[in-house]
Amino acid sequence: MSDATGHRPGEAAIALPETYDAGLYFIGRIRTPWATRGECPKNGLKTDAVCSLTVDAPFSEALQNVEGASHLIVLYWMDEAARDLALQRPRHAEGSRGTFSLRSPVRPNPIALSVVELLERDGSTLRVRGLDCRDGTPLLDIKPYFATTDSRPGATVDRAGTAAR
Amino acid sequence: MSDATGHRPGEAAIALPETYDAGLYFIGRIRTPWATRGECPKNGLKTDAVCSLTVDAPFSEALQNVEGASHLIVLYWMDEAARDLALQRPRHAEGSRGTFSLRSPVRPNPIALSVVELLERDGSTLRVRGLDCRDGTPLLDIKPYFATTDSRPGATVDRAGTAAR
Repeated sequence: MSDATGHRPGEAAIALPETYDAGLYFIGRIRTPWATRGECPKNGLKTDAVCSLTVDAPFSEALQNVEGASHLIVLYWMDEAARDLALQRPRHAEGSRGTFSLRSPVRPNPIALSVVELLERDGSTLRVRGLDCRDGTPLLDIKPYFATTDSRPGATVDRAGTAAR
Repeated sequence: MSDATGHRPGEAAIALPETYDAGLYFIGRIRTPWATRGECPKNGLKTDAVCSLTVDAPFSEALQNVEGASHLIVLYWMDEAARDLALQRPRHAEGSRGTFSLRSPVRPNPIALSVVELLERDGSTLRVRGLDCRDGTPLLDIKPYFATTDSRPGATVDRAGTAAR
């Protein structure tokens, strides 16, 4: 149940600043089989779907050499997400959680991140596996994934809120 | 050697759009031992330095439960980076490379990403290991790192530009 602001009990709002500190360009779009958020898989490993990253002019020349990476980090903009929640009540958890402890799209800067497998480049389109977002989602950045710096197979997350350290 | 635009031979510029598509809030700052870009280590694994993420009001309440993660993904804004290069000539490589094949801070949306080890939370400050950026760098987002979706120990990058697939 939500109140007039769309917030559920236990959720806490952020009074967002009146102005932005920096600006973003949408460099292209993500094409996926999922037309609405409700259809999207829980994460990109829950599906074998091949999705596409289409990079628009004037940014497409920057794709040169990208085929050298087996995996990419894709940053994209969750344009339908609210930005004003400090505490959220995820469906899988009891009680409220801080936004920065969650991968929810709802966050002050709704930048999502997925690690994808690069299958093919066809001009300014990359075919990839591992995305979970809505068709038409704005694309922000593409980076090569380096196992040496980006992979932490032993990382843990204790959903009860206390790290096993 | 650079021309009047600051570009080196072989580099290609992007004619950036006149307006932004979305706006960002700086949620805090990153405190590191490095006052200038020239002092920064090549990447966050080349140093044992403990750095701090200081989250400002009104965003700090969103840190609740973040201690549950052993590792975090930190997104930050490379505020000194140019944004208009499609092809770059990195010092370590021969010839030009596409921006999206590089982790250079120079990119249309200069959002950097580091995976860090979370050592301690002290109120609205997180002490972490694994950063390589300038002191005072604007902070954009903090996310828990999930080994299941974010770790790809077998990922490869062929710097010659062709993936070993």
